[in-house]
Amino acid sequence: MNFTPDFAIYLLDMVGIVACAIAGTTLALHKRFDFFGCILVSMVNAIGGGTLRDVMLGRHPLFWMTDLNYVIVITATSLLCQVFFGAYRRVAWTLVFFDAVGLAAFSVIGLTVALSLGAHPLIAMLMAVMTSIAGGIMRDMICHEIPLVLQKEIYISASIIGSLLYLGLERLAVPTHITETLTLMTIFGVRMLAVRFDWHLPSLQLKLGR
Amino acid sequence: MNFTPDFAIYLLDMVGIVACAIAGTTLALHKRFDFFGCILVSMVNAIGGGTLRDVMLGRHPLFWMTDLNYVIVITATSLLCQVFFGAYRRVAWTLVFFDAVGLAAFSVIGLTVALSLGAHPLIAMLMAVMTSIAGGIMRDMICHEIPLVLQKEIYISASIIGSLLYLGLERLAVPTHITETLTLMTIFGVRMLAVRFDWHLPSLQLKLGR
Amino acid sequence: MNFTPDFAIYLLDMVGIVACAIAGTTLALHKRFDFFGCILVSMVNAIGGGTLRDVMLGRHPLFWMTDLNYVIVITATSLLCQVFFGAYRRVAWTLVFFDAVGLAAFSVIGLTVALSLGAHPLIAMLMAVMTSIAGGIMRDMICHEIPLVLQKEIYISASIIGSLLYLGLERLAVPTHITETLTLMTIFGVRMLAVRFDWHLPSLQLKLGR
Repeated sequence: MNFTPDFAIYLLDMVGIVACAIAGTTLALHKRFDFFGCILVSMVNAIGGGTLRDVMLGRHPLFWMTDLNYVIVITATSLLCQVFFGAYRRVAWTLVFFDAVGLAAFSVIGLTVALSLGAHPLIAMLMAVMTSIAGGIMRDMICHEIPLVLQKEIYISASIIGSLLYLGLERLAVPTHITETLTLMTIFGVRMLAVRFDWHLPSLQLKLGR
Repeated sequence: MNFTPDFAIYLLDMVGIVACAIAGTTLALHKRFDFFGCILVSMVNAIGGGTLRDVMLGRHPLFWMTDLNYVIVITATSLLCQVFFGAYRRVAWTLVFFDAVGLAAFSVIGLTVALSLGAHPLIAMLMAVMTSIAGGIMRDMICHEIPLVLQKEIYISASIIGSLLYLGLERLAVPTHITETLTLMTIFGVRMLAVRFDWHLPSLQLKLGR
Repeated sequence: MNFTPDFAIYLLDMVGIVACAIAGTTLALHKRFDFFGCILVSMVNAIGGGTLRDVMLGRHPLFWMTDLNYVIVITATSLLCQVFFGAYRRVAWTLVFFDAVGLAAFSVIGLTVALSLGAHPLIAMLMAVMTSIAGGIMRDMICHEIPLVLQKEIYISASIIGSLLYLGLERLAVPTHITETLTLMTIFGVRMLAVRFDWHLPSLQLKLGR
C-alpha cells in the first residue's frame, strides 16, 4: 500500500478513533458501566460526531457501515482499555489527553471533508467543530456529565484557531501535508497548554458597577 | 424585495431563531458556559428542531447550510446577549418569554412546511410540535436540566391548540396571513397566560380512594 | 388478511411499540411529566430506536410517517396507561418487564431488517442492539436518568446472545418463524433471569494485588 494523502487521512482518522474510544471507555468505567456499556459509550464517542456530520450532509451509507475496521478497532481498544484500566488512576488526565488528540484529528478531517464537498469555509469550520466535539458531548450526556467542552475551557476555541490557520495556510498554497501537520500540532498544543496553565476565555459580560 | 408570503415566513423564521438564540444563551450563561459554549447552545436551541425535522423528512442540504444568515444571526444574537447579560437578572422570565415566541413561530412554520409537502394533518401537527420543542429539549439535555416543556406546564398543549385552530381556519378558507397571525397570537397567548395564572393540565390518573 | 411472515413481523413490531410506550409512560409519570409530556416520552421510547436506524440507513420516508397506526397505538397506550397508573405501584418491575419485551421484539426486527438489506452480520447485530436500546437510552436521557441498559446489567448481552442464536439457526436452515420465536424467548428469558437472579457481567479489569 502506498502512502498516499488519502491513506494519511485514514490513518489520522484511526488515531482519532482510538483516542476517543480510550476517552469513552475511561469515563464509562469511572461510571461503573458494564462490558458492553463501555463499548457502546466508546462507539458513541468515536463515531458519533462523524455519524452526525454524514447524516446532516446526507451521505449514505455511513462510513462505518461499509468499512468494518472502525467497529473492530473501537471494540478492541475498549476491550484492552477495560483490561488495563486497573493499572492507572489518573482518569482526569487520561480524558484530557485523549480528548485533545481526538479534537485535533477530527477537526482536520471535518474541515477536509466539508471543503472537498465544496462547502463555504464558514460552514466547513462549523462542521470541523461539530465533528470533533459532538461525540464527546453525546458521551457526556449519556454518562450524565455536564459537557466539559462547553464550560470555561479553551476547547472549541482550539479547534477554531486551528481551522483559521488551516484556511490561511491553504490560501498561501502551502503543501497540504504541512498544513495538516501544523494544524494538528496547533490544536493539540493550544488545548494542552490551556489545561496546563488554566487558560480561560474572558467573559463578555458588561459589569455595571456592581 | 416585495413582501411576499414566502418572505413573511422567512421573517417569522428569523424571529423564532433570534428568540431561541436568546433563550439558549441565557440558560448557557446561567450554567457558566464559555463564549463558544454559549454560541453552540444557542445554535442547538435555534436550529436543532428544524434540523431534526429536515433529517427525518430527508430534505438535503439542510436549510442553514445553504443560507449563511442563520449562522450569522444566531452568532450575533448570542454575542449581544452575552455582552448585555449583566444588565438584567430575570433569567426565568427571559427564558419563558423568548421560549413562547419561538414556540409560536416554529409551530406555524413546522405546520406550513409539513402541509406543503403533503403530509397527513396528524403528522403535520406532530411535526409542528417537534420542530418547536426539540431545540429546547436538546438545549435542556445539554445543560443538564429536566426539559421544562415536558413537565406540568401548558406548552405542547399551546402548540396543539394553535395547530387545531390553523387547520380549522384553513378549512374555512380564511386567507393564509390571517390564519397565521391568529395562530401565532393564540399559541403565544395561551402559553403566557398559562405561566401568568399557573394553569396546569389535570392529571388523568384514577384516584382509587386513597 | 392472511397470516403472512410480514404480518407476523408487523404484529411483533406493535407488541414492542406497546411495551415501550408503557415503559415510557411509566417513567414519565414517575417523573411527574404532564399529559403530552408522557405521550412524547412514550413516542421517543417506542419509535426512537427505529427512527435512528432508518435515518442512519437513509430510508425515507420514516416508517411511522406513512403508517399512522404507530402514532395512534402509542397515544392510546400512553393514555390508558396514564388513566390506570394509580392502580399499580410497582414502577421498577413494570419498567423491567416491558423493557424486556421491547428488547426482544426490536432486536429480532432490527436483525431482520438489516439482514434483508444485505448488511454484514456484524453490522446487523449492531443494528439490532441499537434499534432495541436507543429508544430507552433517549428516554432515560430526557428523564434525567443514567441509562439502565449501560450499567452492570445483562441487557445488551441478552440482545447479542439472541442475535448469535438467530444467525446460527439461520445458517442451519431452521424455518424462519421457529428461529424468530426461539430468539424472542431467549432474549426475554435471559433478561428476566438476569434481573431475577441478579446476574452481572464480570469486570474485565486486571486486579494488581490491591
